[in-house]
Amino acid sequence: MLRLYDMARAPNPRRVRWFAAEKAIALETIEIDIVSGANLGADYLAINPRGVVPTLLLADGSILDESVAICRYLEGLHPEPNLMGRDGLEMAQIERWQRRMEFDGLFNIAAVFRNTAPAYATRGMPGVLPPTPAIPELAVRGALLAGDWLDQLDQRLATAPFVAGDRFSIADITAAIAVDFGKWVNIRVGDARPHVARWLANVKARPAARA
Amino acid sequence: MLRLYDMARAPNPRRVRWFAAEKAIALETIEIDIVSGANLGADYLAINPRGVVPTLLLADGSILDESVAICRYLEGLHPEPNLMGRDGLEMAQIERWQRRMEFDGLFNIAAVFRNTAPAYATRGMPGVLPPTPAIPELAVRGALLAGDWLDQLDQRLATAPFVAGDRFSIADITAAIAVDFGKWVNIRVGDARPHVARWLANVKARPAARA
Repeated sequence: MLRLYDMARAPNPRRVRWFAAEKAIALETIEIDIVSGANLGADYLAINPRGVVPTLLLADGSILDESVAICRYLEGLHPEPNLMGRDGLEMAQIERWQRRMEFDGLFNIAAVFRNTAPAYATRGMPGVLPPTPAIPELAVRGALLAGDWLDQLDQRLATAPFVAGDRFSIADITAAIAVDFGKWVNIRVGDARPHVARWLANVKARPAARA
Repeated sequence: MLRLYDMARAPNPRRVRWFAAEKAIALETIEIDIVSGANLGADYLAINPRGVVPTLLLADGSILDESVAICRYLEGLHPEPNLMGRDGLEMAQIERWQRRMEFDGLFNIAAVFRNTAPAYATRGMPGVLPPTPAIPELAVRGALLAGDWLDQLDQRLATAPFVAGDRFSIADITAAIAVDFGKWVNIRVGDARPHVARWLANVKARPAARA
């Protein structure tokens, strides 16, 4: 069984767990507590010198990190159900939407969280890096852009059943996890984005969403 | 011939042009001047309502944006020379490194540029978005992290001939363009990163690097 260095309530590891669960890939999960800094301790740095979570341990002892790269590997291992596209054009379209959900949604919400949460006062970015003091204006910008992202997403989901089009994909996983992450910093779908609300209820009803 | 809405000196369009040139894919390029805001004018928004560049126009009249998604499409159209991986594991490894070069390198340098250049005083992020005033502290953080990225890249290239390992890939394109972009904001390889300097001279000697 593949081992995932994980943090149960953090959004990025959840992306990998949900993706794997859609494919019925079992993962052994090892909890690494980022809040207390366990990801920056010697034990974990011996596994991943970057100190980021999630990290997948491969059978040959090497590692993969970066959530979407881990998903790409799992897609190759278990191609069905397909979540990243079947041909070059569909792969590109899903990647386009995945990236929008990540950059416009997840990253902006993360900017609010990392630049306001006391535990991250000197760790504005994840992993082993020089100290990055919180930037309050970045939290303000993140909240503004995350709200705009939700508005755009509502427009998209008014005409498409799923983020990347006709079927469920990794773009829905990223987007739904970003929406849930938003609640941590009081960024909410609210009543003015009914298409996001309907889509979210739909995708979160999938059994894999509980992974 | 595929049409690319382009800006000759901007880093993201250059990623697509270099990638296409490696595969000998000819592109018709239409210059969109981001500095003057042509990407936010009605003519361009009729093509791409997000107002981002580059955008690829497909034969059926639909568009693709997001540089890496465009590259993914070109990879499918012209699989050789392969630049994004031949199997699931190699695709994942290249994607991992591509994302590191993008997030740790290109995005941090872009943060310096967008938060210091007078032309972008109220456009801290690209495309159609609410006004995002420059955040000077974000430029400071970006410079700090971009320097750390160059240090990490030097360590990597001390033992690997290319960013993702044994062969040239999209990760090298992203990294080399980020290094060149750094010069705009006085972030330089310098004498203390000899492995980056050697690798950069090597990859920039490729004919496609001039695209």
